[in-house]
Amino acid sequence: MSKANLTNRKTIHIEWGDCDPAQIVHYPRYLTYFDACTTALFKKAGLSKRQMLKTYRIVGIPLVDLRASFKTPSRFSDTVIVESEITEWRRSSFCVRHRLFKKNVLAVECFEIRVWAVTSEADPDQIESRSVPREVIEMFSAGDKRGRARQRSRQKKQK
Amino acid sequence: MSKANLTNRKTIHIEWGDCDPAQIVHYPRYLTYFDACTTALFKKAGLSKRQMLKTYRIVGIPLVDLRASFKTPSRFSDTVIVESEITEWRRSSFCVRHRLFKKNVLAVECFEIRVWAVTSEADPDQIESRSVPREVIEMFSAGDKRGRARQRSRQKKQK
Amino acid sequence: MSKANLTNRKTIHIEWGDCDPAQIVHYPRYLTYFDACTTALFKKAGLSKRQMLKTYRIVGIPLVDLRASFKTPSRFSDTVIVESEITEWRRSSFCVRHRLFKKNVLAVECFEIRVWAVTSEADPDQIESRSVPREVIEMFSAGDKRGRARQRSRQKKQK
Amino acid sequence: MSKANLTNRKTIHIEWGDCDPAQIVHYPRYLTYFDACTTALFKKAGLSKRQMLKTYRIVGIPLVDLRASFKTPSRFSDTVIVESEITEWRRSSFCVRHRLFKKNVLAVECFEIRVWAVTSEADPDQIESRSVPREVIEMFSAGDKRGRARQRSRQKKQK
Repeated sequence: MSKANLTNRKTIHIEWGDCDPAQIVHYPRYLTYFDACTTALFKKAGLSKRQMLKTYRIVGIPLVDLRASFKTPSRFSDTVIVESEITEWRRSSFCVRHRLFKKNVLAVECFEIRVWAVTSEADPDQIESRSVPREVIEMFSAGDKRGRARQRSRQKKQK
Repeated sequence: MSKANLTNRKTIHIEWGDCDPAQIVHYPRYLTYFDACTTALFKKAGLSKRQMLKTYRIVGIPLVDLRASFKTPSRFSDTVIVESEITEWRRSSFCVRHRLFKKNVLAVECFEIRVWAVTSEADPDQIESRSVPREVIEMFSAGDKRGRARQRSRQKKQK
Repeated sequence: MSKANLTNRKTIHIEWGDCDPAQIVHYPRYLTYFDACTTALFKKAGLSKRQMLKTYRIVGIPLVDLRASFKTPSRFSDTVIVESEITEWRRSSFCVRHRLFKKNVLAVECFEIRVWAVTSEADPDQIESRSVPREVIEMFSAGDKRGRARQRSRQKKQK
Repeated sequence: MSKANLTNRKTIHIEWGDCDPAQIVHYPRYLTYFDACTTALFKKAGLSKRQMLKTYRIVGIPLVDLRASFKTPSRFSDTVIVESEITEWRRSSFCVRHRLFKKNVLAVECFEIRVWAVTSEADPDQIESRSVPREVIEMFSAGDKRGRARQRSRQKKQK
């Protein structure tokens, strides 16, 4: 399997509306942060979400599995940093790891498994997975390859 | 360890605003549903969230660990049912399992570990765990015990 | 213009996650409640959101104008009731009023103007308004008419 | 009444999870953006939300009135800019205007009336308004005054 090594760091300002009556971030909000972090990671690789859906005719990259551990709470007016990277590419799915740091301390860790998904032709209400295109995977790799993959993607858009 | 066996079933109508451009529930919303389901489970045991916080002087029952698997998507206008139960009581934490069914098919499964939490006296910005009171655990048990525990809880409130 | 008089009453349980560190409902959540209340009002008239979009090939009924006044706060574990009705039908838009009651006291009042919207054929990224079909308006009217409109709608679906 | 003239500009990236099945921002999310914009405006004046609550012993600045008009939709992967300013200071309340621009076109406009609120001493479940401190208002004014107000606020914190 291809080893991914592109990492994205996203700064998040914890908002009042993200916190609950215990004065801490209401945990589903962390998952909302992490979804935006996955989007930002793809953007860094050269794929804005809107462009990615158009270019590859996918309906999205929905989650199929989620694990998270919450080690220390965050509060409104805190600023945190989330480091995100793809840890594994499988045939039609991939694993993303997010680590949220508060003042350099790991506060939340999250692992996602997502699928490369299209609308089912047999039943438009269903979603099916498809192989992740090789050029997408290459965009997350270091070195020359990434440049070449991005170039191919750009050429494809122009057709 | 005490075996919990109280189960709550909550009917949820999937709203337009819960869904994303892929026309399916945006996954952090499932976690929002499940948080409400945990609240409803405690309510069924006799503890409304507001009363529980007042009676036991806790700041909440925040999550420390989360696992979820998303097997089949749901859409707006769908009605789903979530079955929730506490699967294990530990000293100062407990495990909750939620199973979301769409037309009798298991669509999402989620496991939470939550702690019985108070504000730290040493540092009001921190949260500390405390032993779950025996009478709370008994409220989730079957048979005569539950009645007795509820009675004790009621007497405590009157003091 | 046709006078609407169908009213829907929706019971809402205020959740922990709907509240902010001031221990009261975070106001954008009220708008989320009201969006679900508009959906429920149409459902009561005989139109589930999913069916409505399919039957009339609309993309939704997005808001163009919003006014709300927040008179008294609500808190987690409160149960409130929202009364919703369409107060005016215009050519391609309509006005909805929501009144949220806490123990029979009006706590929040909200007025929405929504449009009957389709995807623009000229530019798929834009949305255009269309005349609200007469049969939809009739579904919200009292008396025999409503029955006839629903019957027509049902016949249309079977074609 | 004092004329406010401090303006804050906040860049917002529209996220996938902010959009609904019509592929556009679900309107309650705009209110969530604007709440964060009001917080950012106070931050620019020198008052982080957490510090403001501590220094002035308020429970928050909750909304009592809201008006918004949605002129053109935004979509995921769009970047928008929100300009926020306080348009009027009243005794215990103030008016905030937010204007959301998409490519220099006004897309959403919102007017908020908020109150300077404390927990009621008579009934801890209620919220009461208080006069907005003069030094807070001065922080939003142009020229030398602002510097002096900030200095006073800093001195107050040190006591």
